[in-house]
Amino acid sequence: MEQITFEHWQKLDLKVGRIVSVERIPKTEKLYKIQADIGLERTIQIVSSLVPYYSSEELQGSSIIVLVNLKPTRFHGELSEGMLLAAEKEDGSTCILLKPEREIEPGTPIT
Amino acid sequence: MEQITFEHWQKLDLKVGRIVSVERIPKTEKLYKIQADIGLERTIQIVSSLVPYYSSEELQGSSIIVLVNLKPTRFHGELSEGMLLAAEKEDGSTCILLKPEREIEPGTPIT
Repeated sequence: MEQITFEHWQKLDLKVGRIVSVERIPKTEKLYKIQADIGLERTIQIVSSLVPYYSSEELQGSSIIVLVNLKPTRFHGELSEGMLLAAEKEDGSTCILLKPEREIEPGTPIT
Repeated sequence: MEQITFEHWQKLDLKVGRIVSVERIPKTEKLYKIQADIGLERTIQIVSSLVPYYSSEELQGSSIIVLVNLKPTRFHGELSEGMLLAAEKEDGSTCILLKPEREIEPGTPIT
């Protein structure tokens, strides 16, 4: 990949989050609708295709890393206001969420 | 922060890494020189100001997340070929490295 500048990196708003609730999106195979605390007064909603990799019980309460300044978009009619960061093998066989290696409050910025 | 596009995000080359060795950079207060496996034939060298937060024993062998396509730069004469991602409080009181929540091979891309 091409090199990027530090200014390019700094335009990303990445934060620690915590998953507050998770539900399957009906009539989809892979999509969860997640409410996440990112240190704001309200939670944000994230649509993520994690059903093949994580049960909702595993996700509930987890610390996550969220990209929060992508343009919000809709999947199957559901608003997604952020993207969860994960390590993903190119063949799609494995997808492992990123997290802080120790607990830290939701909203803490990633630098 | 301003919104970014998905294309902006996709220009970042973020990978899982593993710390192979760590040493203090003499005559600096905060800097480690880290050799990291990011799934290439050779390791890369990363300079990171983690001395106030982590001992070299804690870092040794750790899984990390590395931004690998920043322009390489030098700190105190030492080449740095990547940046470790961490959650960091704005007052600098706490700095927690990011990692995958389960083990996965170095070199796995972050998506």
